Amino acid sequence: MNLLEERIRKDGVVMEGDVLKVDGFLNHQMDVRLFQAMAEEWKRLFAGCDINKILTIEASGIGIACIAGLTFDCPVVFAKKTKTRNIAGDVYRAEVRSYTHNNISEVIVSKKYLGAGDRVLLIDDFLANGAALAGLMELAAMAGAQVIGAGIAIEKAYQPGGKLLRERGLRIESLARISAMDESGRIEFIS
Amino acid sequence: MNLLEERIRKDGVVMEGDVLKVDGFLNHQMDVRLFQAMAEEWKRLFAGCDINKILTIEASGIGIACIAGLTFDCPVVFAKKTKTRNIAGDVYRAEVRSYTHNNISEVIVSKKYLGAGDRVLLIDDFLANGAALAGLMELAAMAGAQVIGAGIAIEKAYQPGGKLLRERGLRIESLARISAMDESGRIEFIS
Repeated sequence: MNLLEERIRKDGVVMEGDVLKVDGFLNHQMDVRLFQAMAEEWKRLFAGCDINKILTIEASGIGIACIAGLTFDCPVVFAKKTKTRNIAGDVYRAEVRSYTHNNISEVIVSKKYLGAGDRVLLIDDFLANGAALAGLMELAAMAGAQVIGAGIAIEKAYQPGGKLLRERGLRIESLARISAMDESGRIEFIS
Repeated sequence: MNLLEERIRKDGVVMEGDVLKVDGFLNHQMDVRLFQAMAEEWKRLFAGCDINKILTIEASGIGIACIAGLTFDCPVVFAKKTKTRNIAGDVYRAEVRSYTHNNISEVIVSKKYLGAGDRVLLIDDFLANGAALAGLMELAAMAGAQVIGAGIAIEKAYQPGGKLLRERGLRIESLARISAMDESGRIEFIS
């Protein structure tokens, strides 16, 4: 998606440790008009797929997922990273390793909000190692929900997540696929 | 706002420990069409206020804030609860006590995304003790940004936050103000 690639070239900053900083428009300050264009692109790509629920993971997926929820006209569920007392006991649980934060979180979804009959689109801001997506797939499988595909903003295509999950049969639509980047400012996309 | 009050009566559950569970439509599964109606109500209430930025706090404020961002046609910034290595050092910091999670978090906003000249609308799902809103006000004050007001989904009006912050001059537009609730299912609103 050219609009997102151009924005990454313009405002993304490659930092030490394979970090692409996009906090000016994607995951700290959020350009919701850009999110709307991204959502419309996923809507086009997943046309006719009868998606009735969007599933994402807190925190930075939530904004993109909610705008996509408006576009797909369906509710959005976000998997929570820790058990809070506001969620009753009946939850599905999966472990997700974060390479960014260097920890393992338990993510949970209430059994009430994900179930058989749901045709789910997974949404997240980044795909690198695929840990978050794999966790969401695990939650959906436990619930008996069908995962139609995943809409990702930025895929680090040189990392293993995308390949691994596509080999497992997941349809992944990443709007910007980075093939290489380095701290000199070079960012290359797979067109 | 009748639509939100009706939804709380229909799907909200009062639980032990003064907890109002609204995870079916507000802060776990999210009804984005309801968020859109809420955003339009805030747009009406803050008409002519020239709001150019929305500030919220992770995680459950993000969805509502992003839909409001579309309605107000402005970027949305969410204060992050911990320092991650994806945010460079130059941040404003405030402490926020969570009564729900019984802990104190540091919330941060990058200095790049909040500054003098910003006319800010604060958005959050709940107002009870006012700790989150006070933290956001502190961040805005540090940045020299002007807080125009706060849009809150549900205010527990029997708790002290709303009164305290209004006395400090904050304009708060809460779309549902609960005057009393208990585990029998009784929920009363201030009309």
